[in-house]
Amino acid sequence: MRIRVVGVGMGPQHVTAEAAEAIRSCDYVIAASKNDADGLLAVRRSIAASYGVEVVAVPDPPRERDDPADYPGAVRDWHAARVAAYDTVLRERGGTAGFLVWGDPSTYDSTIRIVESLGIDFDVVPGISAPQLLAARHRIVLHGVGQPVHVTTARRLQDDVAAGQTNLVVMLSRTLDLTGLDDWSIWWGANLGTDSEELLAGRIADVVDSLEPARERARDAAGWVMDVCLLRAPA
Amino acid sequence: MRIRVVGVGMGPQHVTAEAAEAIRSCDYVIAASKNDADGLLAVRRSIAASYGVEVVAVPDPPRERDDPADYPGAVRDWHAARVAAYDTVLRERGGTAGFLVWGDPSTYDSTIRIVESLGIDFDVVPGISAPQLLAARHRIVLHGVGQPVHVTTARRLQDDVAAGQTNLVVMLSRTLDLTGLDDWSIWWGANLGTDSEELLAGRIADVVDSLEPARERARDAAGWVMDVCLLRAPA
Repeated sequence: MRIRVVGVGMGPQHVTAEAAEAIRSCDYVIAASKNDADGLLAVRRSIAASYGVEVVAVPDPPRERDDPADYPGAVRDWHAARVAAYDTVLRERGGTAGFLVWGDPSTYDSTIRIVESLGIDFDVVPGISAPQLLAARHRIVLHGVGQPVHVTTARRLQDDVAAGQTNLVVMLSRTLDLTGLDDWSIWWGANLGTDSEELLAGRIADVVDSLEPARERARDAAGWVMDVCLLRAPA
Repeated sequence: MRIRVVGVGMGPQHVTAEAAEAIRSCDYVIAASKNDADGLLAVRRSIAASYGVEVVAVPDPPRERDDPADYPGAVRDWHAARVAAYDTVLRERGGTAGFLVWGDPSTYDSTIRIVESLGIDFDVVPGISAPQLLAARHRIVLHGVGQPVHVTTARRLQDDVAAGQTNLVVMLSRTLDLTGLDDWSIWWGANLGTDSEELLAGRIADVVDSLEPARERARDAAGWVMDVCLLRAPA
């Protein structure tokens, strides 16, 4: 028995030659659902189908969506429930199972941690991530020459800014608190790589009122929304 | 006249469907050489050839390799020289020119900045980056659950650690100063995605003496070496 964790990027257009070969080598593919983006299951189905591989959809266990006091604990419980669900399917079916990961398995994705818990040999194939596509769409480099980029979550944004970070990629931005950042620049995107893609860029004070409407347009068009942004302090 | 900046990842195996289509749409491809990795020109040639597109190699202007007092200034001068070299070729040939970027154009790559200076319309296609392949090879996520990852350069590493960073991806590590980090963990890779790939992981004090020999093996095998690592403070 073997598992292949395959990053498929932000859509079929991002499947690499290596990822295509990995998918073809699988007996079946388990669609690991990420966030509340159920619409992505259809995309993963279509990717697997295009390589002639069956998709086994394992329903995600419910996850606390609000802000639990014990966030890491809530994530752990959710992982344990997913592990149990996958374990049942994998032991029944055997063979080589693929896990298709939206984006890249190396950042803000739980698939590797889940697969590790299964105790089955696995390998990982990288995929294009949301910040990379964000940068490509805006035709920017994510940092100044020789400077760092701090990749963080919306939850941590204000703390990281308070700690002195001036150039941040913000992931998982269900709610984005931009308080105090009026003069900063933002490069933002939602549902990147899909038909419902939305983009915005500018000085935060100038574009902040357009963010929520753009987010809603993406959600209305797709039934789900995932966004990411780069924030940079004035020079 | 049009330019397409195409990330090709860490080798032909990482070319996405979108990148392949972009390369095919080019009348010719200009190989933007990165770092001192001339061996990569051959890889880019072979990628372009596999899509039936001619490669125009523009020799890189010489670049100060030591640690100039005015580092940003040195980079700017080098960019200006590259821009002039490309401008000549592009005005002569016209049509759609592709720039193949090793890795991803969005991080620690100068191609977008160079192309912007040319004043020619361009778009960008993302590619798999070295940190993503590093993570895939070591089968890790680049950060703790809900935690940030600070992507920086070897030059800045000690300053960023002093400022409190505890989880860092380090790029451009010609010399990696690991002083004071004995108890940290490292996940390291050189020439990732190529035949000369080297990997190491462990507590820094335990593996630090193996790093330089591994780096030399990669250099001996390929004629060049590019490495990247993730460093993490003890829990």
